[in-house]
Amino acid sequence: MKLQEIAELLSGELTLPEFAGKEISGIGKIEQAGDDEITFIANPVYEKYFSGTSAGCVIVSRKFNAELYPRLDDRKLPLIRVEDPYLSFLTLLDILSPQTELQKVGIDETAVISDTAEISSDEVRIGAHCFIGAKVKIGARVSILPNTVILAGAEIADDVLIYPNVTIYQGTKIGARVIIHSGTVIGSDGFGQAKNPDGTFQKIPQKGIVVIEDDVEIGSNCSIDRATMGETIIRRGVKLDNMIQIAHNVEIGENTVIAAQSGVAGSTKIGKNCMIGGKVGIVGHISICDNVILTAATNVSKSINEPGMYSGYRSQPMRAELRQEATIRGLNKKVK
Amino acid sequence: MKLQEIAELLSGELTLPEFAGKEISGIGKIEQAGDDEITFIANPVYEKYFSGTSAGCVIVSRKFNAELYPRLDDRKLPLIRVEDPYLSFLTLLDILSPQTELQKVGIDETAVISDTAEISSDEVRIGAHCFIGAKVKIGARVSILPNTVILAGAEIADDVLIYPNVTIYQGTKIGARVIIHSGTVIGSDGFGQAKNPDGTFQKIPQKGIVVIEDDVEIGSNCSIDRATMGETIIRRGVKLDNMIQIAHNVEIGENTVIAAQSGVAGSTKIGKNCMIGGKVGIVGHISICDNVILTAATNVSKSINEPGMYSGYRSQPMRAELRQEATIRGLNKKVK
Amino acid sequence: MKLQEIAELLSGELTLPEFAGKEISGIGKIEQAGDDEITFIANPVYEKYFSGTSAGCVIVSRKFNAELYPRLDDRKLPLIRVEDPYLSFLTLLDILSPQTELQKVGIDETAVISDTAEISSDEVRIGAHCFIGAKVKIGARVSILPNTVILAGAEIADDVLIYPNVTIYQGTKIGARVIIHSGTVIGSDGFGQAKNPDGTFQKIPQKGIVVIEDDVEIGSNCSIDRATMGETIIRRGVKLDNMIQIAHNVEIGENTVIAAQSGVAGSTKIGKNCMIGGKVGIVGHISICDNVILTAATNVSKSINEPGMYSGYRSQPMRAELRQEATIRGLNKKVK
Repeated sequence: MKLQEIAELLSGELTLPEFAGKEISGIGKIEQAGDDEITFIANPVYEKYFSGTSAGCVIVSRKFNAELYPRLDDRKLPLIRVEDPYLSFLTLLDILSPQTELQKVGIDETAVISDTAEISSDEVRIGAHCFIGAKVKIGARVSILPNTVILAGAEIADDVLIYPNVTIYQGTKIGARVIIHSGTVIGSDGFGQAKNPDGTFQKIPQKGIVVIEDDVEIGSNCSIDRATMGETIIRRGVKLDNMIQIAHNVEIGENTVIAAQSGVAGSTKIGKNCMIGGKVGIVGHISICDNVILTAATNVSKSINEPGMYSGYRSQPMRAELRQEATIRGLNKKVK
Repeated sequence: MKLQEIAELLSGELTLPEFAGKEISGIGKIEQAGDDEITFIANPVYEKYFSGTSAGCVIVSRKFNAELYPRLDDRKLPLIRVEDPYLSFLTLLDILSPQTELQKVGIDETAVISDTAEISSDEVRIGAHCFIGAKVKIGARVSILPNTVILAGAEIADDVLIYPNVTIYQGTKIGARVIIHSGTVIGSDGFGQAKNPDGTFQKIPQKGIVVIEDDVEIGSNCSIDRATMGETIIRRGVKLDNMIQIAHNVEIGENTVIAAQSGVAGSTKIGKNCMIGGKVGIVGHISICDNVILTAATNVSKSINEPGMYSGYRSQPMRAELRQEATIRGLNKKVK
Repeated sequence: MKLQEIAELLSGELTLPEFAGKEISGIGKIEQAGDDEITFIANPVYEKYFSGTSAGCVIVSRKFNAELYPRLDDRKLPLIRVEDPYLSFLTLLDILSPQTELQKVGIDETAVISDTAEISSDEVRIGAHCFIGAKVKIGARVSILPNTVILAGAEIADDVLIYPNVTIYQGTKIGARVIIHSGTVIGSDGFGQAKNPDGTFQKIPQKGIVVIEDDVEIGSNCSIDRATMGETIIRRGVKLDNMIQIAHNVEIGENTVIAAQSGVAGSTKIGKNCMIGGKVGIVGHISICDNVILTAATNVSKSINEPGMYSGYRSQPMRAELRQEATIRGLNKKVK
């Protein structure tokens, strides 16, 4: 792809017109890209690499002042100036490095499909050794990669992508454009055990389901348990990283993102637009309002009713937590 | 099922005899149930929904005072009064919402079964694409769902239920009525590495096995490692939630329950009837006595020899921990 | 195997020559071994079992003073004295308890192999229901156990062992002698989401790969994400326990070991020869130098530039952390 074409595609301005015909074959990081690759600066942290980059072109903000970073060599370096370098980079990424086709259209002959499953005839892909149970419904343009199991009665809407070795339990409902990575389990029994007088436990039947709404992405090796009764719900636009535990009857609000190894215990309700860091623990039967930020490794044991940032081994508003930490460390020095 | 039949089944008392013939088709939550559904109140927290419920009947304790919660409409609402509403609910749950049959009796023709495996002829179910290795023994009425792998020499007792995509390594012994959820791995190598003088590591062969005793339930995406020598043991009646790590040579005592994302390091021994919250970490080579409660996110680095409740980033008896937290927070306010 | 043969194999000295012809059939723990088994004492903690052991022979250090532990019975107990009892034990372990053969040489007829995959003809083992995608390369003496999926373009070097139900995403490169346990996912998408003005998120394409160098071992149910661009790298000799999360663009240095349930967030670089305990959390975009020790449950939120031991909910050098904890507990007593 020629630099002039890229500049037009991004509605950007090429600084050195004599490079208009230069061919670009891919995208690279600014510190590694070669002369046939294009790179970008979206975060000022990376401006320090500008003087020495070997990239064939750099996408920069219209405000970027190249004179602050004189080149280390005599090579002329064309720039493309755009409104938002990061969005431009995302746009290019899909064009210059297309996705490998992982699964052909059609149903692999080794997949086992129930007679009563209803599978769209519109460009569905089902890989080797998949299992599709009784009365499962699969929408248009769904891709299910090898060795994934979908048990009876689950419903998968259009344009869903499920990677290998995923397990979807009976009755689970999955919305449109959902992406699910390998090793994830959706719909396993909630952890319900009633104690008998002799100290043993009686299993509480888990009769509800899991509902995953549209545009959710779920990372690898997550567990999302079915409700005891009713539904465990992951609302539209939620993004879950890897190894996240969602217990029975939990609800996660729209566009909330959760980083890896966090867990939410039973019946807790989390609001919209929350940002939850990695290794966060949230106890059961509480609620967290919209627009809450929990930093990594925070433990939450009470409901949070005001938006804001919370932190700590026993969560507090972030400022109180940091002040407390500073107090303890100062005290420690005095006592010593 | 008629209300009169339900009342008899639960040894309960129907308050309005004119509803004896009313048909109930299912169970619902008190705030959602419709007129053809029955619901219950076991926890006083839910009494507030009583006045407005649309359920066709409510199971309540013999002591429940309905006059405290006058109906919001004119509808007459029959009650069934019982000794223990929660146990009554569990009893009904299995009767009114029967389990979907996930796997037919027999061995799926795509399963690969070793010639030397010994499989009971009594109502065993083995799903699509399962693998059953050499000399594996499988008892009566065992269900193994699709894509589960059981390696050589493992022994599975009667009435075991294993969900899809589970891996059971060689030599593992699994007791009667055990339930194992998807993604769980039992018998992977313990983490044993001996440091060489040059800084590299030599793998310590892991030659022991895992023993899971009767009536254990294991959630999804757990890892239970084989012993270096001897056995990693999960005793009778233990219940494990999802994503729990049990290292080599650990022993978990009878009827102990562990919530999600907790981990127990190598050679540690945990007693009977313990209740271990989510995200708890327990170091290796210690012991925890019977009847210990560890609250969520507790880290334990020393043996615990007295029953009771323990808590904290470095575990202490619960009261000391909470007092310490209060002290720090008070101090913080003074210092500010 | 005769005791005399064992003594010679270990370059050790048999204390009672009249036992030279005694037959040993296996290895046992000192508190459990029977008369036809051999055991060892490497850790002084186990010396207390010496007086009562029923083992047929004990491997001990040349410095071990047997007179300190008089036998409880009249039985004569031969010893083999060696330089390093633990290394001797490891040597014996492989000889006396050989690994079960889990997979025959050859490709199982139920495996689905792409026409364009390149598979060595030298003693490769591929199990039932495996899937090997387009242009995958598999080296000599590789074992891939049942139900493992390897997507397009992945490259597996010689002598690799992959257990069942593993997923290797497209383009992943795996070095020689690597061992990967069940449930592990390598190459799933990094967690990259760009926020749109309306609060929804746009997926940032993850176009890089994962590189696992030679002699790495990875436990069960781990997740290692592909880079956004470039590579997530696990260097030569790294050992990962179970349920470890490695985010996109992370680099783990040579011979670093990480215990179970730890996680490393995006773009962080960890040095060589580090020892990282269980349940450790490390935030993104930082670096940790060589020879750092992080104790269990430590959270690291800033770069570490000096070797040493670090600890704590907010990591500090270990001594400062323990002093702080002691101060708080002391203060607590005073305030009370």
